[in-house]
Amino acid sequence: MPSSLQAVHNIPEICAQLGITDVVLSPGSRCAPLTIAFARHPAITVRTVPDERAAAFIGLGLAQAQRRAVALVCTSGTAGLNYAPAVAEAFFQQIPLVVFTADRPPEWIDQLDGQTIRQTDLYGRHAKGSFTFPTDTSHPDAQWHAARLVSEAINLAQQFPAGPVQVNVPLREPFYPKPDEELTFGPVKVMHELPGRSQLPAATLRELREVLRGTARVLVVAGQHPADVPLQLALREFATAWQLPVVGDLIANLHQPTAASHNQHPRFVGRQDVFLAVPEPGLKEALRPDLLITFGQSLISKALKLYLRQHRPARHWHIQAAGPVADTFQSLTQVIRMEPTDFFAALASRNEDTDSLSDAPSSPGQTEPGRNVLPADVTRVAPRPRLNWPAPAEADAAKAAYLRPWLAAENWATGFLADFMQHPNQQFNEFTTIFQALQLLPDGAALHLANSMAVRYANILGLPAGHGAGVFANRGTSGIDGCTSTAVGAALAQPERPVVLITGDVAFFYDRNAFWHNYPLPNLRVMLLNNHAGGIFRLIDGPRQQPELEEFFETRQPLTAENTARDFGLRYFPVSTFAELEAALPVFLSTEGGAALLEVFTDSQTNAAFFEQYRTLVRTSFALPT
Amino acid sequence: MPSSLQAVHNIPEICAQLGITDVVLSPGSRCAPLTIAFARHPAITVRTVPDERAAAFIGLGLAQAQRRAVALVCTSGTAGLNYAPAVAEAFFQQIPLVVFTADRPPEWIDQLDGQTIRQTDLYGRHAKGSFTFPTDTSHPDAQWHAARLVSEAINLAQQFPAGPVQVNVPLREPFYPKPDEELTFGPVKVMHELPGRSQLPAATLRELREVLRGTARVLVVAGQHPADVPLQLALREFATAWQLPVVGDLIANLHQPTAASHNQHPRFVGRQDVFLAVPEPGLKEALRPDLLITFGQSLISKALKLYLRQHRPARHWHIQAAGPVADTFQSLTQVIRMEPTDFFAALASRNEDTDSLSDAPSSPGQTEPGRNVLPADVTRVAPRPRLNWPAPAEADAAKAAYLRPWLAAENWATGFLADFMQHPNQQFNEFTTIFQALQLLPDGAALHLANSMAVRYANILGLPAGHGAGVFANRGTSGIDGCTSTAVGAALAQPERPVVLITGDVAFFYDRNAFWHNYPLPNLRVMLLNNHAGGIFRLIDGPRQQPELEEFFETRQPLTAENTARDFGLRYFPVSTFAELEAALPVFLSTEGGAALLEVFTDSQTNAAFFEQYRTLVRTSFALPT
Repeated sequence: MPSSLQAVHNIPEICAQLGITDVVLSPGSRCAPLTIAFARHPAITVRTVPDERAAAFIGLGLAQAQRRAVALVCTSGTAGLNYAPAVAEAFFQQIPLVVFTADRPPEWIDQLDGQTIRQTDLYGRHAKGSFTFPTDTSHPDAQWHAARLVSEAINLAQQFPAGPVQVNVPLREPFYPKPDEELTFGPVKVMHELPGRSQLPAATLRELREVLRGTARVLVVAGQHPADVPLQLALREFATAWQLPVVGDLIANLHQPTAASHNQHPRFVGRQDVFLAVPEPGLKEALRPDLLITFGQSLISKALKLYLRQHRPARHWHIQAAGPVADTFQSLTQVIRMEPTDFFAALASRNEDTDSLSDAPSSPGQTEPGRNVLPADVTRVAPRPRLNWPAPAEADAAKAAYLRPWLAAENWATGFLADFMQHPNQQFNEFTTIFQALQLLPDGAALHLANSMAVRYANILGLPAGHGAGVFANRGTSGIDGCTSTAVGAALAQPERPVVLITGDVAFFYDRNAFWHNYPLPNLRVMLLNNHAGGIFRLIDGPRQQPELEEFFETRQPLTAENTARDFGLRYFPVSTFAELEAALPVFLSTEGGAALLEVFTDSQTNAAFFEQYRTLVRTSFALPT
Repeated sequence: MPSSLQAVHNIPEICAQLGITDVVLSPGSRCAPLTIAFARHPAITVRTVPDERAAAFIGLGLAQAQRRAVALVCTSGTAGLNYAPAVAEAFFQQIPLVVFTADRPPEWIDQLDGQTIRQTDLYGRHAKGSFTFPTDTSHPDAQWHAARLVSEAINLAQQFPAGPVQVNVPLREPFYPKPDEELTFGPVKVMHELPGRSQLPAATLRELREVLRGTARVLVVAGQHPADVPLQLALREFATAWQLPVVGDLIANLHQPTAASHNQHPRFVGRQDVFLAVPEPGLKEALRPDLLITFGQSLISKALKLYLRQHRPARHWHIQAAGPVADTFQSLTQVIRMEPTDFFAALASRNEDTDSLSDAPSSPGQTEPGRNVLPADVTRVAPRPRLNWPAPAEADAAKAAYLRPWLAAENWATGFLADFMQHPNQQFNEFTTIFQALQLLPDGAALHLANSMAVRYANILGLPAGHGAGVFANRGTSGIDGCTSTAVGAALAQPERPVVLITGDVAFFYDRNAFWHNYPLPNLRVMLLNNHAGGIFRLIDGPRQQPELEEFFETRQPLTAENTARDFGLRYFPVSTFAELEAALPVFLSTEGGAALLEVFTDSQTNAAFFEQYRTLVRTSFALPT
C-alpha cells in the first residue's frame, strides 16, 4: 500500500469521529481506495447501491431520518452527476450530505481518459461548498490539509442551515492494498464544532412583545420542519399565552402529540387547503392577519400561499437562525435570527419578567406590568415612542375574536372531510383511497409522501387526530425523481419503525432503482396510486383543456408494478375496488411479512371527476359560523 | 393567449429554420408553453419521455444518428439536473444538444416555491454556453433578444466542436392558450451560420510533407469518429502514398467499406488490443513511431494508450480544426488546425504539386522535385535549414519496414482470435458470445456498445472483414448511465436501420427507463450479457484480490430482464448454452418481429477464467514474424 493513500484511509476515521455512521457507496474502480477504507472501518455502516441517482436519495433519506450527515462515495465521471438531483433536494431541504467524488488526478482532466469529467465544484450553486482533496500527501502540510478539509466539509454540511458539500478526491493508481494488507485508520486530528444559539437582547424582546401585545390578529405559519418536541412545546405555550392560531401543513409536523399531551394542540390548524378554497370574502377577511410569524421551510398549501399574498399582513416576522430567507408571502418585514424554539420560549409569556411579576393579562383593567419596567438595555439613548396599545381586556377579546374563525374553519373542514369521505355510491378513486389508508396508518410510522399528487391529497386530508406519524416529503425541490429512494433510506435508517410511502405511478416508475440493491426493507410499505398517467395534469385547469393533455401532459403509461414487485421480492397487493382495498389495507400495513407494495388502480378521469366534486362541494357547503 | 408568450412560441420556428427536426420533451407544468409550441409546430417531430435522464440520452442518440442538433425540453426544478449525465456525455462526445429548461421567473428563485432551483448555468463547465431567455418580451428589443439568443444557442451547439448548450426559459403564468386558440409561429429572423474550413499555407504544408518524407516510422491513430466516407478515402490515399499504418478502435469507424472498396483498407489496423498485450520487446520496438499523427476523440484501447505513452514518438501531430486538444499520449508537439479530411487530402501526395510535377517516389535515385521548389510563401524571410533527408528509395524501404510489423501483427491477431474462438470444450461465456453475435450482425446495422465490458470485448474482437456497421459508444464520459437510452434514440432516428445494442446487466438495469415511453422500437435488438454483477471488477487485478470484491465492486445483483421484457413488450430470448445461442441469434437478429431482447446468462467466474485463458494464450502464442 503506497503511503500516499493513508490520507484517504483516514477519511472514514474523521467521518466517524465527527458523528457520521452511514455511508452509501456506488461501485467503481477509481473510488476503490475510498470504498475499501469505508468498508473496513469498524464504526461505519456501508451500503452499496448501483444507480447513483437512487443511491444519493437513499443517503438523503438516511440523513433525514437520522438527523445527521450521511456520506456518499462514487467513482469518477458522470457517477457524481447522477447525484445532482438529490444534492439539490438536500440543499433546499437543508439535509447534510458529504459527497466524496473520486476523480482522476488534475493532470488527467480533459485528456480523453474514460470516466473523466470536470468535477471541481460539480454541484455549482446547489452545494454549500466544494473541497478538493490534495492529490499528493507526502508533505506533512498536505496531510494536515487533507485531514483538515474533511473536518471542514463535514462541519459545513452540518452547520445550520445544513446541506450538501462535495469533497473531490483525485486518486492515482495503484488503488488497492496488497491482498493481505491491513488498513490503519489515523491517528487523525479532527475539528469539532459546537454550534452557538443566538439570543435577542432583552430590550428587543420587549419591543417584540409590545407588538404582540398590541396586535389582535397574529398568525403563526409553520413551514416544513422535522418533528421537534421542544419546538412544539414552546410553540404551544406561545400560542396559548397569546391566544393565536398556528397553521402548518402536514410536513410542518405540528400534528404530532407531545409528551405533554396525546392530542394535537387545539390551536394548531392543518386543513387550510380545504377551508381557504371556500370563496367566502367574510371568512377571508376574518382570517386576515396583521402580524404574520413564520418559521421552517416550504409550504405545500398553495391556497395558503396565495391567500397570504392576497391578504398581506402589515408585519411579517420570519424566525430563522441563519442563512438566506425567502419572502414567500411578499410581506416579509423582519428577519429574526434565532432558533424558532428559543424565540417562542422567550416570548411564551406576555410579561417581560415572568419570574418576578404576576402574569395578569386576564384581569381586566389592570395595567400590564411589563410596560412600566425600564428597558434593561441601558445603553439605549433615544426614548422609544409610547404606543397606544389597547387595554388588556380589549386586546384579549380582539385576539379571541381572531382565533375563533380559524378554529371554526378548521373544525368545519375536519367535519366536512369526514362526511364527504363517507359519501355513498362513490366510484373507486385515489382521494378516498388515501383517506382510508391514513386512517389505518400505524402510529409512530414515518409517512413519506411523494410529489406531486400524493403529498397534495394527504395535505388536504390530514391525519386522524392525535396521530403520531412523522411526515416527510421532498419539498426542497418538489421533484418526483427520488421519492421512493428517500423512503428506502428512511426504512434502512430505522428498521424498527414502519415507513409508509404513498406515491403515484410516474414517481414510482421513475425511481424503481430505489429497490435495486441487496438490503432488505422489512418495514417498508409502498402504496402506489396507479392511474397510468401524471394525473395532476387532469386536475389543473390549463392542461386539461388542451389537445396535448393525454400525450404530452398526462403522458399515459401502461405499466403496472406487478413485475417490479416480482423483481424485488415485494409482497404485492393489487386493488381496484373499495372492498379489495379494505381487505388488503390491514394486511399490507401490518408490521409482519416484510416489504410490501399495494397498487391501487384508479381511473384518471374518475379521479378528476371525484376531485372536482370535492372542490365544488367545498365551495358550496361552507357557511360562516354565527 | 398573452402576447408575451409569442416569443416562446417562436422558439420551435427558429429551431426548425436552423435544421432541428426532433425534440424530446418530458412532462411538466412550467414547460407547458414550450411543450404546446413544439407539439403543434408542423416541422418538428416531438416525443415525450418521463424520466429526464433517459430522455436526454435518447436525445443524444437521436442527435448522434442524425448528425444534427436535437432539442430537449423539461420543466423547472431537478428535471434539468437529471439531464446532466447526458449533457456531460454530449459535451465530451461533441454532440449538439439544445437544452430548453423551463424556469420560474427570476423574482421567484429561492422563495421556497415548488420545483424551483438555481437554473442559470445549470451544467457549469459541461455546456458550451448557457443562455437566459428574457422574462418579459413586450419591448421590441427584448423580442429581438429572445429570437437572437435561440439562434446563437443553436449555432453554438452545432459549431465544431459541437456540444450541449442550455437555454433557460423563465415563464410566468398563464401558460396555456385558450381551448380553441391557434398558435402562430413567427415571423422570425434567424441567423444562419456557414462554417469555414481552415487551410494551411502551401509553405507549411511543404514543411509537413518534408517531415513525412524524412520520417520512416509514421503512425496514424484515429480516435472516436463517426463513419465518414470522404475522411476514409482521404486517409486511404494518404496511407497509400506514405505507406503507413493507420490504427483505430472500432469506434473510429475506419472499418467500414467505402464506395471505392468493399473491404477495409489493408493498412487499417484494428486489433491492437490483442497484439499490444504480447510481452514481446522486439514487437514493441518494431511498432514504435517517430511521428504520430492523430485525429478524432477518445480511444478504447488502453493497451494502445499505454504503449504510446511508454514509446513516445519524437513528434506528435494532432489534427483538429478547433477546440481544446488532449495530450493523450504525453507526446503532443504540434496541433494542426484543419479538418482531418482536408489535412489527409492535402498531404495525400508525396509531392508539393501533383498536378505539374511527376509523382516519382518509387524511382530510386531520383531527387524528389518538391524539395527544389521555392517556398510559395514569399513573405517568409528566414531561410529554412536544409534537413538531411534520406533518399527516396531508402525512405521507401524504411517506411515499408515500419508498416510490415503492424500489418503482420494485425494479421496474426485476426487469425489468433478466429482460432481461439473455435476452441472446443469451452464453457459458455460472454467473450465468445459477443464474437458469435458480431459474426451475424446485420450489415449496415448501427452497433451500440455499452460501457464498460461490452465495448471492451467488442474492441478486442473486431468486426468481420468488410462489415459495414456503424459503431457507437458513449466514450465521451464512458458512463453506463445512458447506453440503452442512446441506442433507443438511434433506433427512433432511423427506423429502417437495425440498431443492435450489446450491454451488460449493470448498464442495462441502470437505464431501464430507456423503454418507458410510448414509441415502438421495431428495429432495436438488445443483447444483454447478464452475469449478475459488474463483471469488469473480476477481470482487473486490483479488486479481484480484495475481500470487498463481491459486495462492493462486482455488486452482485439478482435481476433477470424477463420482467423488464414483459413490462415493455420486448420479445425475449433467454440463452444459457451455445446451442441456445446459435438457435436464438438468427431469429433475434432478423429484421422481422419487432423489438427484441436476448439475455445471455453467464457466470462471472467462468467469464473471468475464460478471459484469463485468452490473455495467457495471447501472451504465449505470439512469435515475431520472420
